[in-house]
Amino acid sequence: MGNADFVYPPSTSDRREQCTHRVAIPPAQPFFTSFKNSLKETFFPDDPLRQFKNKTPSKKLILGLQYLFPILEWAPRYSFQFLKSDLISGITIASLAIPQGISYAKLANLPPILGLYSSFIPPLVYAMMGSSRDLAVGTVAVASLLTASMLGKEVNAAEHPTLYLHLAFTATFFAGLLQASLGLLRLGFIVDFLSHATIVGFMSGAATVVILQQLKGILGLDHFTKSTDIISVFHSVFSQTHESKRRPKLFWISAMAPLTSVILGSLLVYLTHAEKHGVQIIGNLKKGLNPLSFGELVFTTPYMATALKTGMVTGIIALAEGIAVGRSFAMFKDYNIDGNKEMIAIGSMNIVGSCFSCYITTGPFSRSAVNFNAGCKTAMSNVIMAVAVMVTLQFLTPLFHYTPLVVLSAIIISAMLGLIDYDSAIHLWNVDKFDFFVCMGAYIGVIFASVEVGLVIAVAISVLRLLLFVARPRTFLLGNLPNSTVYRNVEQYPDANNVHGVLILKIDAPIYFANSSYLRERITRWIDEEEEKLKSTGETSLQYVILDMTAVGNIDTSGISMLEEVKKTTDRREIKLVLANPGAEVMKKLNKAKFLENIGQEWVYLTVGEAVDACNYKLHTCKPAESQPWNNV
Amino acid sequence: MGNADFVYPPSTSDRREQCTHRVAIPPAQPFFTSFKNSLKETFFPDDPLRQFKNKTPSKKLILGLQYLFPILEWAPRYSFQFLKSDLISGITIASLAIPQGISYAKLANLPPILGLYSSFIPPLVYAMMGSSRDLAVGTVAVASLLTASMLGKEVNAAEHPTLYLHLAFTATFFAGLLQASLGLLRLGFIVDFLSHATIVGFMSGAATVVILQQLKGILGLDHFTKSTDIISVFHSVFSQTHESKRRPKLFWISAMAPLTSVILGSLLVYLTHAEKHGVQIIGNLKKGLNPLSFGELVFTTPYMATALKTGMVTGIIALAEGIAVGRSFAMFKDYNIDGNKEMIAIGSMNIVGSCFSCYITTGPFSRSAVNFNAGCKTAMSNVIMAVAVMVTLQFLTPLFHYTPLVVLSAIIISAMLGLIDYDSAIHLWNVDKFDFFVCMGAYIGVIFASVEVGLVIAVAISVLRLLLFVARPRTFLLGNLPNSTVYRNVEQYPDANNVHGVLILKIDAPIYFANSSYLRERITRWIDEEEEKLKSTGETSLQYVILDMTAVGNIDTSGISMLEEVKKTTDRREIKLVLANPGAEVMKKLNKAKFLENIGQEWVYLTVGEAVDACNYKLHTCKPAESQPWNNV
Repeated sequence: MGNADFVYPPSTSDRREQCTHRVAIPPAQPFFTSFKNSLKETFFPDDPLRQFKNKTPSKKLILGLQYLFPILEWAPRYSFQFLKSDLISGITIASLAIPQGISYAKLANLPPILGLYSSFIPPLVYAMMGSSRDLAVGTVAVASLLTASMLGKEVNAAEHPTLYLHLAFTATFFAGLLQASLGLLRLGFIVDFLSHATIVGFMSGAATVVILQQLKGILGLDHFTKSTDIISVFHSVFSQTHESKRRPKLFWISAMAPLTSVILGSLLVYLTHAEKHGVQIIGNLKKGLNPLSFGELVFTTPYMATALKTGMVTGIIALAEGIAVGRSFAMFKDYNIDGNKEMIAIGSMNIVGSCFSCYITTGPFSRSAVNFNAGCKTAMSNVIMAVAVMVTLQFLTPLFHYTPLVVLSAIIISAMLGLIDYDSAIHLWNVDKFDFFVCMGAYIGVIFASVEVGLVIAVAISVLRLLLFVARPRTFLLGNLPNSTVYRNVEQYPDANNVHGVLILKIDAPIYFANSSYLRERITRWIDEEEEKLKSTGETSLQYVILDMTAVGNIDTSGISMLEEVKKTTDRREIKLVLANPGAEVMKKLNKAKFLENIGQEWVYLTVGEAVDACNYKLHTCKPAESQPWNNV
Repeated sequence: MGNADFVYPPSTSDRREQCTHRVAIPPAQPFFTSFKNSLKETFFPDDPLRQFKNKTPSKKLILGLQYLFPILEWAPRYSFQFLKSDLISGITIASLAIPQGISYAKLANLPPILGLYSSFIPPLVYAMMGSSRDLAVGTVAVASLLTASMLGKEVNAAEHPTLYLHLAFTATFFAGLLQASLGLLRLGFIVDFLSHATIVGFMSGAATVVILQQLKGILGLDHFTKSTDIISVFHSVFSQTHESKRRPKLFWISAMAPLTSVILGSLLVYLTHAEKHGVQIIGNLKKGLNPLSFGELVFTTPYMATALKTGMVTGIIALAEGIAVGRSFAMFKDYNIDGNKEMIAIGSMNIVGSCFSCYITTGPFSRSAVNFNAGCKTAMSNVIMAVAVMVTLQFLTPLFHYTPLVVLSAIIISAMLGLIDYDSAIHLWNVDKFDFFVCMGAYIGVIFASVEVGLVIAVAISVLRLLLFVARPRTFLLGNLPNSTVYRNVEQYPDANNVHGVLILKIDAPIYFANSSYLRERITRWIDEEEEKLKSTGETSLQYVILDMTAVGNIDTSGISMLEEVKKTTDRREIKLVLANPGAEVMKKLNKAKFLENIGQEWVYLTVGEAVDACNYKLHTCKPAESQPWNNV
């Protein structure tokens, strides 16, 4: 049979002569070619090597280096104008990074100084390798919380602070390794399996947990009038901050509030000597830049497994946030971000970071938004921030001696309140109930079990949805829209009319092993119901079943067996099975499996309208269609 | 906005007046109704309660009992004609069940008598509850092998025969429980995830393992000339048997060969006293019916976990075989099998069996085929077989005393050779390469790792395929077929023409979180490439992008965000985004998410042709379409 076009049977040729188009079987491709193409579509959908085509080797090398280190591409064009903007935004985010860094490190049960270390080295690495112009690199609350909860299960941070610290570095190393590998292996799409709904639920859950945790700490201090005063002050400050998020013009309040709070809080403690009355303070922070920590990575059992697991989970979560943030801002400013390249950049900054006493970092949304609003132009703002943090590390750490921990709690709570995203949850409920359940699954899982459980629940429900879509595809009854030859779903278009004696079904998913039994049962039930209906009205009996294959993207051998069985069933009932508009992939496989020979090539039509025409013609009820037979759906 | 139809803008109304159909937003359903409907479609696609509608309570009770015990339905109509047929087929399958039962019990490292026990009680239970008329119930080689390998890992059958035996009963109990629960909970579709390709690879792999195992046993005897003689004799007998499988008329040879071999072999050993020269024989088989084994089920740690795991795996595998076999023969004879009901029947027979010294049973393909060919009419043939086995148990067990084990090996090998299904594997390769990889994954996994690993590999690859289908949907460029207003994939129809200044893309899968990033990138790349192409030819620039949503079965909130982002991108480039034929579910969600307002309701068309018409009209290149604007795809 080969790729020959179909030949209509002579009986209809008189009406069909004018019809020059038949359902085509696409030309056969060698296995290797089609395999290569589908690999390319799977792993290189953005065709990242396009720019390398037809270039000299030296040009290729330069392009390659620029690909890996985008700084080589933008630095030569860097202007004084850019520097002015980046300076402002860099200092702004530094003022946010320093108090937040200290707070999040406490959240991770790590020494506060680690928050500063982590705001120094990773931003420098990202500035060289990252392709986002707006991402502000730093530690994030959720990853800090995850570190505390996952490592804390194995090692008590209070009892074994050094081991705990080393495990945190190791987890960061593994997180970076995972992130960079995903990017290198072009497996970035794994991150896509954390849907927006999952992230919303997960973040809100984590934020709730953190807030409850911090409140416990704060409320434990409630017999110190001064402290509670401070809290209420901060609370009012921060509730304004939170409000202001939606008004970019007021973002300066949001950006400056944490540092102001730290300064005010520290001054207050220093002046009133509240630390002697039980208000806990940060205490001594070691001066100096990041010490090397490469030698402290733990690659021995039994702790390596814990670090590995923590690294995997925090790495994926951090990656999801970083990539999503980078993409959002790139969208705003209309430049492209290569997700896989970003993963390499984020992974590298964590690998390097883990060797310089940093724990896991990514591009937090809130800080990147401040960066964006402050007018950053390039990743140089990260360098400015790093320099500011360096200066702090070298000279200013003693200033934080009197900072009360309660301020840090307030900073954390304020950041966390912004993460509890009611609006998104309501939006999910309104638009897509299933996404809402995913979101709630994550939220409830995080709150009542653990962050990991919440994540697993949400991803499992999401994947289940994909599988259910394939396992339980919809089948629609199609009807003829009045005064046209267009056939559409009668549920969506209630005025569409049935065609007497012809059952037209649209299958709305690929036909795979997971749904072939279902589809066989469902199609049989459609036929049964249609026959009963026709019998009860005493009209013509069912003579044709047309399957509209437009939405059947692919078929596998189980699916073809299903069609063969449906064919047998319809044959036995003296009903003719007709296919309409099978796609390229489906035609190829039906041809190879000889199903086209089985069904009869004259029973495969380009459009539903044509198929109905042919059926009507053969039925001799012969209401010729209103228009040319090929101009229909 | 509500459900109002779209109103075309005045500028085109002159051409569109005649067009009465717009893309409809289906009427909003209360959440509970749509939830109930989708639950029904998911769990009750076959609408099993349809027959109960509008019936009196007593009629309902009778129908309910008949539903659970189909014997109540067919027994009253049972005729002498039926009995004659069932008698012949029942005795035929008994002659197969007895030697195979003994052999497979040996394969499971269980006492041979268990094979007979298992061919007595379970067929009786199935005869009452099963809805297949052709299934011949009994033990199967693969489940026996699985039992041996999974239980054998924990408990050595030679050292602790009693514990091993009790664990086998417990595993059977759990298998039955799982099977019945899947049926009761309407989760039968889980079995569909074992695709045909998986089963082919898995069975072939298991068969290969068993053959190698048995050959080792047989070759260990090679210094006994007589035994090897017996082997060669049997081998020739069985290779004929195997051949004859494809010729139903010769099936009597296949059906009778095992029993003949056993009789000849036993006679030979008895006459030559070969047992005294090292030929291993079955030895004493206890006379009498199944002893009770309910009290012997093990529900204590640490062994319960092993039994549970074994039960799960053997239960699923046995279920997959039983359901597939039942469905195939029902298809032949044109009656319906309710998969979930069958699961309850198979589960019940294993639960009951486990209390009467039976191990796992199902409906093996080979024996059911013999049953079918011998002309069985109802499940009564299983009763006849059970009676024959009962007689054997009561009176004939001493006859098997001298049966040489090598005959059992030969029987196993012969059955196994039939399971190695080259032809199917070749068919898979020809039709669908991916299915072939699934099959090979199972085969190689079973051979080089273990049966469970093979199964997990195959299921994982299969599920990955489903996920990949959604994660990496195809996007096609559509072109206009000459002399028509039909738009089709230009790869499948190479003579389809591009429309100048208009890019028409068909998205071939639902738009979900798992593919929204991909689709955004891919659509952007299509636009980039089209713009480059147009630029290089110096023709009109790209002005419209039409997304054909016909095959987009559903969309989630991530998908809608993706569309919003694509809209922003096209807006920035001054390209108009147009949607064609979104389905009911998609329209509903786009409406709720206010995307329809965003894109402009006049930019959503019923067909691609109409959308192109509108674009052409606005482009003022205005080549009026050849036919009425609504008669196109």
